[in-house]
Amino acid sequence: MTPSPKTAPDASRRSERSRRAILDAALELVGETGYQRLTIEAIAARAGVGKQTIYRWWPSKAAVLLDAFAALGEEAAAGETELPDTGDLEADLKLVLRTTVDELNSPRFDAAYRALAAESIVNPEVCAHFVERILEPQLRLYAQRLARAQQAGHIRPDIDPRTALELLTGPLTHRWLLRTLPLTHEYADAVVELTLRGLAHG
Amino acid sequence: MTPSPKTAPDASRRSERSRRAILDAALELVGETGYQRLTIEAIAARAGVGKQTIYRWWPSKAAVLLDAFAALGEEAAAGETELPDTGDLEADLKLVLRTTVDELNSPRFDAAYRALAAESIVNPEVCAHFVERILEPQLRLYAQRLARAQQAGHIRPDIDPRTALELLTGPLTHRWLLRTLPLTHEYADAVVELTLRGLAHG
Repeated sequence: MTPSPKTAPDASRRSERSRRAILDAALELVGETGYQRLTIEAIAARAGVGKQTIYRWWPSKAAVLLDAFAALGEEAAAGETELPDTGDLEADLKLVLRTTVDELNSPRFDAAYRALAAESIVNPEVCAHFVERILEPQLRLYAQRLARAQQAGHIRPDIDPRTALELLTGPLTHRWLLRTLPLTHEYADAVVELTLRGLAHG
Repeated sequence: MTPSPKTAPDASRRSERSRRAILDAALELVGETGYQRLTIEAIAARAGVGKQTIYRWWPSKAAVLLDAFAALGEEAAAGETELPDTGDLEADLKLVLRTTVDELNSPRFDAAYRALAAESIVNPEVCAHFVERILEPQLRLYAQRLARAQQAGHIRPDIDPRTALELLTGPLTHRWLLRTLPLTHEYADAVVELTLRGLAHG
């Protein structure tokens, strides 16, 4: 769904500039108006491009938004395609969850991500694309890190990493989405410690 | 916000019937149309009462809905005001989380609760009422049960029950809201086991 211009370098640079402007506009607008009221027309106007430029590259507003979120995720990951692995699982997970807290609390991310999550909750089709394109690729990184920790003997061998990772990510998402209590680094640390050590005595 | 009629028994029964019809209509309609498109007019029409009957008891559609969810919660709790405490924390929590799974998966609950959650995610005012009126009272039951388990020596003494309970409820809510993987009794059991025992080896 991303443009792959087979044209001269100048045209290619212009294409990339337009593409970035469209994705940025989509993120800003969905945060301002919500998913339902977002239109391709408004994205085009905010990005300073023609509607046809958007329709040439994307079939729908959902497709633009998913690319915009994917780009935001790549930006946040800063080129990293794996979770950190220093050998210290607890320190690595605290670092990752603290970074996630900062991301969720950042205004650029917050409004847009809330709008997409709210729509996903009531719209199974948007949800399926969101989960497949944005959410599960992130969760797989946790599963891989936990599987490596398991190989290194730091995680119990009977544990399914795909199930276990939700103990780390679920509480953070829940607290952020429903604003029950402040989402802080201290909370991120507590979730990692409780998840690794468990609640039960002895 | 609930009617407290100081009239004859017959009028009181009629009031209670109207009140139930209004709450049921609100739950049905919000699941069908979503929060934004829900109107007092539509609730009145579905319930077979006049608009003024609703406005006499509730100031807004949000207030009707919150009462409707509170009634749904009381119905699900079937008069219980505490989580079960047989002395076996793991068995008790599995029972509670399996019941929650059944509730979340029931059509009556699902659509209405999704609509309210989606609105809460993007609307801080609705969210604050939702959390205060519906969510936190439920979470307090977990905190109380975990605190009693701590007194009984089944939970480590250094743990904050309010933080710990989100390891139980967060993953279920997350999986339900974003439909990442099936929400089953097996998953509920796994969350309880992992939360109590932790992931870390030894």
